[in-house]
Amino acid sequence: MLAEIKGLNEECGIFGVWGHPDASQLTYYGIHSLQHRGQEGTGMVVSDGKTLKGVKGEGLVAEIFTAEVMKELSGNAAIGHVRYATAGGGGYENVQPLLFHSQTGSLALAHNGNLVNATSLKHQLEAQGSIFQTSSDTEVLAHLMKRSGFTDSKDRAKNALSMLKGAYAYLILTETELMVALDPHGLRPLSLGSLGDAYVVASETCAFDVVGAEYIRDIMPGELLIINDKGIFSEQFAVSTTKAICMMEYIYFSRPDSNIQGVNVHTARKNLGKRLAIEAPIEADVVTGVPDSSISAAIGFAEASGIPYEMGLIKNRYVGRTFIQPSQSLREQGVKMKLSPVRGVVEGKRVIMVDDSIVRGTTSRRIVTMLKEAGATEVHVVISSPPIKNPCFYGIDTSTTEELIASDKSVEEIRQLIGADSLTFLSLEGMVEAIGKNEFCLGCFTGNYPTEIYPETLQYYYQK
Amino acid sequence: MLAEIKGLNEECGIFGVWGHPDASQLTYYGIHSLQHRGQEGTGMVVSDGKTLKGVKGEGLVAEIFTAEVMKELSGNAAIGHVRYATAGGGGYENVQPLLFHSQTGSLALAHNGNLVNATSLKHQLEAQGSIFQTSSDTEVLAHLMKRSGFTDSKDRAKNALSMLKGAYAYLILTETELMVALDPHGLRPLSLGSLGDAYVVASETCAFDVVGAEYIRDIMPGELLIINDKGIFSEQFAVSTTKAICMMEYIYFSRPDSNIQGVNVHTARKNLGKRLAIEAPIEADVVTGVPDSSISAAIGFAEASGIPYEMGLIKNRYVGRTFIQPSQSLREQGVKMKLSPVRGVVEGKRVIMVDDSIVRGTTSRRIVTMLKEAGATEVHVVISSPPIKNPCFYGIDTSTTEELIASDKSVEEIRQLIGADSLTFLSLEGMVEAIGKNEFCLGCFTGNYPTEIYPETLQYYYQK
Amino acid sequence: MLAEIKGLNEECGIFGVWGHPDASQLTYYGIHSLQHRGQEGTGMVVSDGKTLKGVKGEGLVAEIFTAEVMKELSGNAAIGHVRYATAGGGGYENVQPLLFHSQTGSLALAHNGNLVNATSLKHQLEAQGSIFQTSSDTEVLAHLMKRSGFTDSKDRAKNALSMLKGAYAYLILTETELMVALDPHGLRPLSLGSLGDAYVVASETCAFDVVGAEYIRDIMPGELLIINDKGIFSEQFAVSTTKAICMMEYIYFSRPDSNIQGVNVHTARKNLGKRLAIEAPIEADVVTGVPDSSISAAIGFAEASGIPYEMGLIKNRYVGRTFIQPSQSLREQGVKMKLSPVRGVVEGKRVIMVDDSIVRGTTSRRIVTMLKEAGATEVHVVISSPPIKNPCFYGIDTSTTEELIASDKSVEEIRQLIGADSLTFLSLEGMVEAIGKNEFCLGCFTGNYPTEIYPETLQYYYQK
Amino acid sequence: MLAEIKGLNEECGIFGVWGHPDASQLTYYGIHSLQHRGQEGTGMVVSDGKTLKGVKGEGLVAEIFTAEVMKELSGNAAIGHVRYATAGGGGYENVQPLLFHSQTGSLALAHNGNLVNATSLKHQLEAQGSIFQTSSDTEVLAHLMKRSGFTDSKDRAKNALSMLKGAYAYLILTETELMVALDPHGLRPLSLGSLGDAYVVASETCAFDVVGAEYIRDIMPGELLIINDKGIFSEQFAVSTTKAICMMEYIYFSRPDSNIQGVNVHTARKNLGKRLAIEAPIEADVVTGVPDSSISAAIGFAEASGIPYEMGLIKNRYVGRTFIQPSQSLREQGVKMKLSPVRGVVEGKRVIMVDDSIVRGTTSRRIVTMLKEAGATEVHVVISSPPIKNPCFYGIDTSTTEELIASDKSVEEIRQLIGADSLTFLSLEGMVEAIGKNEFCLGCFTGNYPTEIYPETLQYYYQK
Repeated sequence: MLAEIKGLNEECGIFGVWGHPDASQLTYYGIHSLQHRGQEGTGMVVSDGKTLKGVKGEGLVAEIFTAEVMKELSGNAAIGHVRYATAGGGGYENVQPLLFHSQTGSLALAHNGNLVNATSLKHQLEAQGSIFQTSSDTEVLAHLMKRSGFTDSKDRAKNALSMLKGAYAYLILTETELMVALDPHGLRPLSLGSLGDAYVVASETCAFDVVGAEYIRDIMPGELLIINDKGIFSEQFAVSTTKAICMMEYIYFSRPDSNIQGVNVHTARKNLGKRLAIEAPIEADVVTGVPDSSISAAIGFAEASGIPYEMGLIKNRYVGRTFIQPSQSLREQGVKMKLSPVRGVVEGKRVIMVDDSIVRGTTSRRIVTMLKEAGATEVHVVISSPPIKNPCFYGIDTSTTEELIASDKSVEEIRQLIGADSLTFLSLEGMVEAIGKNEFCLGCFTGNYPTEIYPETLQYYYQK
Repeated sequence: MLAEIKGLNEECGIFGVWGHPDASQLTYYGIHSLQHRGQEGTGMVVSDGKTLKGVKGEGLVAEIFTAEVMKELSGNAAIGHVRYATAGGGGYENVQPLLFHSQTGSLALAHNGNLVNATSLKHQLEAQGSIFQTSSDTEVLAHLMKRSGFTDSKDRAKNALSMLKGAYAYLILTETELMVALDPHGLRPLSLGSLGDAYVVASETCAFDVVGAEYIRDIMPGELLIINDKGIFSEQFAVSTTKAICMMEYIYFSRPDSNIQGVNVHTARKNLGKRLAIEAPIEADVVTGVPDSSISAAIGFAEASGIPYEMGLIKNRYVGRTFIQPSQSLREQGVKMKLSPVRGVVEGKRVIMVDDSIVRGTTSRRIVTMLKEAGATEVHVVISSPPIKNPCFYGIDTSTTEELIASDKSVEEIRQLIGADSLTFLSLEGMVEAIGKNEFCLGCFTGNYPTEIYPETLQYYYQK
Repeated sequence: MLAEIKGLNEECGIFGVWGHPDASQLTYYGIHSLQHRGQEGTGMVVSDGKTLKGVKGEGLVAEIFTAEVMKELSGNAAIGHVRYATAGGGGYENVQPLLFHSQTGSLALAHNGNLVNATSLKHQLEAQGSIFQTSSDTEVLAHLMKRSGFTDSKDRAKNALSMLKGAYAYLILTETELMVALDPHGLRPLSLGSLGDAYVVASETCAFDVVGAEYIRDIMPGELLIINDKGIFSEQFAVSTTKAICMMEYIYFSRPDSNIQGVNVHTARKNLGKRLAIEAPIEADVVTGVPDSSISAAIGFAEASGIPYEMGLIKNRYVGRTFIQPSQSLREQGVKMKLSPVRGVVEGKRVIMVDDSIVRGTTSRRIVTMLKEAGATEVHVVISSPPIKNPCFYGIDTSTTEELIASDKSVEEIRQLIGADSLTFLSLEGMVEAIGKNEFCLGCFTGNYPTEIYPETLQYYYQK
Repeated sequence: MLAEIKGLNEECGIFGVWGHPDASQLTYYGIHSLQHRGQEGTGMVVSDGKTLKGVKGEGLVAEIFTAEVMKELSGNAAIGHVRYATAGGGGYENVQPLLFHSQTGSLALAHNGNLVNATSLKHQLEAQGSIFQTSSDTEVLAHLMKRSGFTDSKDRAKNALSMLKGAYAYLILTETELMVALDPHGLRPLSLGSLGDAYVVASETCAFDVVGAEYIRDIMPGELLIINDKGIFSEQFAVSTTKAICMMEYIYFSRPDSNIQGVNVHTARKNLGKRLAIEAPIEADVVTGVPDSSISAAIGFAEASGIPYEMGLIKNRYVGRTFIQPSQSLREQGVKMKLSPVRGVVEGKRVIMVDDSIVRGTTSRRIVTMLKEAGATEVHVVISSPPIKNPCFYGIDTSTTEELIASDKSVEEIRQLIGADSLTFLSLEGMVEAIGKNEFCLGCFTGNYPTEIYPETLQYYYQK
């Protein structure tokens, strides 16, 4: 049962359009630009005003939505979803959007985030006779809306949303409207844009640039937006007590060309790198970053430190799902995958290796070893965030406490484990100041979470 | 007929192993690391000392060589190939290695490069009764070897190779030996490495790093290397009059982590960017590079100019073969693909955009427009190579003369066409000095080619 | 909405096993032998006593259940389903078995038949807050069981089954038991067999022969069978007022090697043919049957009439889903598909063509034309069943009344339309006597149905 | 090397059209109707008068030639091929038609039959410098034609054909003509038809019926037919000394609706069955045939003996390539595949089981066992051909001598091995008289072959 807590709504990407004749095409390019947020599965539901039609599957956007499939998807409104690969879980059923047909109309749901009271809510709903067909948290909202006594869809949504705890950005599509909702702490990013007379909604603003839309504003915590043929209407279903956007969106999850609450992600990362250069004044010959997410920080570090930035590590671009991982024996013989060191750059050099975070430490150890084998005389690891000591209950897959190397090890212990010549984490203040905002969820660093956490959830993360 | 000149052996990647029990696995990782050199098709032939077994197909390495397929490929020697996507041409038959069975044994061939006298040779061979089953230049070598009067395989190979004109790096695998040959000018890169007692050969040294092999040396122009169970033997089948490695390998074709003739590609590109910063002293706010091949040059430019490097353009990583290109109407509405500008970085800024070369000019125009639409106040285009005024006959797909924008237009005319505020090309001397070598083929820049060019070849490139 | 009435549970095939270590393999061969009952989709759910695991897909058994998929399916109990191709409807969601997970356990359902009150029941359930995820009738049973107040699974099933009207054969699998239910009129065939200590259930006895099981008995109308680790238990959830097995199962639907209620289908058909020979004493040179379902009747006709049986029509065996139907223009030029006449057999002959039934008449007309073009001097059509004048509400796809040629045309009118020299239908008495039983549903012939028919259902069939 | 003797041109099907705008579509339906002659691979080459375009692949016609593929194939002439599944051999390269491009034009070849001197010819050709890319016999003809000194294509073909020994029916397509050739003994069937102004050629006349063509005549032994825009021209390239059509084409290979040399195959088989009834007067209750090839003979047997024909064995129609064969352990438990007995028909009965031939005897033993397990009290096996004592060198896969059960066992010994109550083979005279012709190749029965047999061929069949 607890497997359901971890849930299948972890960090994902969502995109929606209302009022555009190319709704499905725009959604295709929109979710494609969010592909970095989830490669396990993807789906789209399109409305032509009379019926909802959905297609989904396990795979990448360009694999599931072939030209032939796209031909079948036409309408003026659509929502799409890309889903993060969670080990073990999954299956076709859990790919979103979820689509429900009833004799009074249809409903499609796309969700980014993680609820912390999904198990409790499911217990209650099943006791009342509901049958769940997915193991996804997302379905809970549909059942709550169905059972709500209100007749107006807006009231049904507000009533249902008010029962959810945790992180969620929801898109709700019916034949007649697109509803958009964000949890009361605004834990997940969600923005509104326009494209002529049409409205678009996306997890990240990079999707707006790709489809040629203009950014209007970010969705507010606790806001329910109703978009229909009469216009766009905003309601507040909850009062936000603590605004708390997930810091990890800046650190590594979002695309560098996205802006979150007005801050460009690449610039934020570069600033993290600059601050790190000040906090970690190391003598070295070259600065390098772990591709792709740490390149911006590495460039910032190089700029601030005056040490030249070099491409010391390279990422293999063609590692898809069918790629065969090297066997243990081949790895021991030195066969690499995904990342390889650039010998011509690091040989005989003192290298500063910038990474965005350390979770289990195994990847860091592998990269340090790789750089040393390629001839680096020293490897100094600098991390553009503080140690992650606590699990995330809101959808970032930092796993259980036991697996977090920083949960019970000191920086020096970690340094020894990864084999670095020195190891520096950015300070909490340094990180917050570098971004230049102060309304973050920092739970994974500090253990202080914006919402209450349910016992069943804690149990999962701490006892696994 | 002329379609055969352009040929199907354009820039590709080749990899070979002799004397290792995991020959096929190593070849898998080897050609996978060379995937950037060709995404159209790939193949592998493995020898167990008694028979040669081959698998090939149209697609990426990880698509063609599934776990199931790899199980069937075992042996102590192997050669592999990745093939560049040439418009129109192609088909399964032309995917390499080519594999020939005869009653006296088998022969597999993998080729990187382009012959300039293939058509003449085919005419002669067909007149003598040979039947060609592919439209590939590569097959010519097999027929020449078959018809050579010599009994020793080494002599047959030398005799046949001496008739070829143009650019070629060949791997020739039989049940008893692996032969490796490079054209007399050394136009294409080809290196030798070792892995314990085994030998490996690859188009680029990055493949050695990926399989854990050690670099020994580059293959010499006009050299025939014979590797068999008795050891490794070198013969010269031609005297090299002009050493002439293709400059484009440094400029944009090779992977940044490869070394060509002892020079690291990333470092070479960074030096090109530094030199460019000296030759083009522009006032601007940010430097950005066109991903992926111009990033190193952009970083070099930023370092030398003191103008900060920023990620002003981002490349979508998930654009595979099934990706649906936006329709003209969607493009006009602003839907982008592959590249998108980072508004948060370029808005209100004077941008220096570094690119490696200009071929037709259409991509440059598109990027300049994109940056301006994203708010750049000025866009200065700087190119880390001189104008390409002439076709390449040796396998780089710079197309026919007519399509080369610089073949009949001045720099100022090009600037206007692409809509840039300024346009600077690196000087020829600047380029050569930045790499720090002086034995290049510069044919596409200067019109001086290291080999004679056959009339039929000229006809194709100039009259098409 | 009415699309849901026609439903997606039309004539299908189901198979189940309890108590055998090779449960999934046996189910594979079981549903494979029932493939003629449905080619649109197939699925299987396996229980290992702790969890239920399901795989399903659109396609044939051998396509969906690859060796790789089968490896993942192990357990001691399983149910499987093959689904009939209904035009338009369908989709992955509706492929069975349906699998439901809840916090108190899992439930899988496989259904053969068609409910006549599904729409009404869905209305009521949705009004109470249930959400349906499929458009399948089958799901209704799950919701009814979930909402039943009883704690015992057997009581929940009996209570829920008692609300269903129409034709149904259900397999219900949980972690701890396999339940088997047949509607109170026994409209669909369903038999019980044994395989060592294990029990098997199947729509047709041919599945028992294929897996090496022994036939025990047919499931009784209104019977609920509970099979678990303690044994096998029978309950009656309804009193059967009219036993009424569907006549069409004998006429054309079932496999000739199956026995239904003790009567072999091939023998039944041969007897229909013999009786027809008596009722239609025609002078002719050869008797031929329309493959595959009319071969037995044709052989019976030949035997009784003394006119030799010949293979006058041949069926192309390789017409799968990817087969390209000839264009109208090619058809007019004489290109045939599926069936072709055997010129060498029919040329210059008076032919008796035996078919099992006439629905729309278009196929009959095409075959008569084909035989005449191949040189038949006369074509006498004899049908081994009476005219179908009324729709089937219980799952046989005889379509709406309007499309039934016999609903408003006389035999003579039909003869003219199909271009036959004579046309004879078997009499109702002849048919019933030939089978030698008298407890049939003859609704499609007589318009007398064993169950009440709901207005919404009538509306669908008569107004479409 | 000897593997090449057995060759890959075993019994196949070929089809060609000249002068029809729907040439590729007609070829599609043509080879589809010949699918029973080969399921391993299929291909088609189409000519638009200027170029030849080919598509081929491993799989069924409807799998390889999808609607998308067919769109690309247009022209006024085409040839197609279906290829028999030979264990082990094969691969994409060997799928036909073979297509050769040269600077003077293209050539496509489709072949049905087996050469007996292919190895010798290949030796000679390789010694002269030819390179073979397939292991198919078919390629030999292309090399012989290429090397022939004649300038006229007709003379080149005649010269080359005159060097071939064995069984062959060839279709040769160039941009300007379709050539059709049959070996001097006419071992394989090949017929000519017309479709308006167009000509069609096919291995079997059933293909004519399917595409609406009219049969003109059979191709004559030693005939070369040239079809081009000027008309149709016949030449004799060899004098036929012995006409010898393969008897097995009548016995089991061809489709029952085909006519070979004026004799309908179904009728021929029925006559074999009638004759067998006279030669084997057995007391029994039912006659049954092994589907599909023995049904006609069984019906003939029933008609002549007065014992009723029944469907005692049924063939599963959905056993495609992805079907999972039951494991040994499941087989022992009684799981069946492909064929199952009809218990309701054979239980308690004395059964006469008609089969067309016995090769290894294993299938016969399995069927006898199956019938007895299903309750048959006696099983009398009657075979509608004499014992096969010798290998076929001309393409019928009766395998090596050692594997032929009748090569060293008496009828009584075979009877015991297969477990039958009696076993009767049709006499040689009976067989020949039943077909009513006397120009057969009876090599597999008598050991007398119409052509000389080369030592290397004998060696393969007798020493394997």
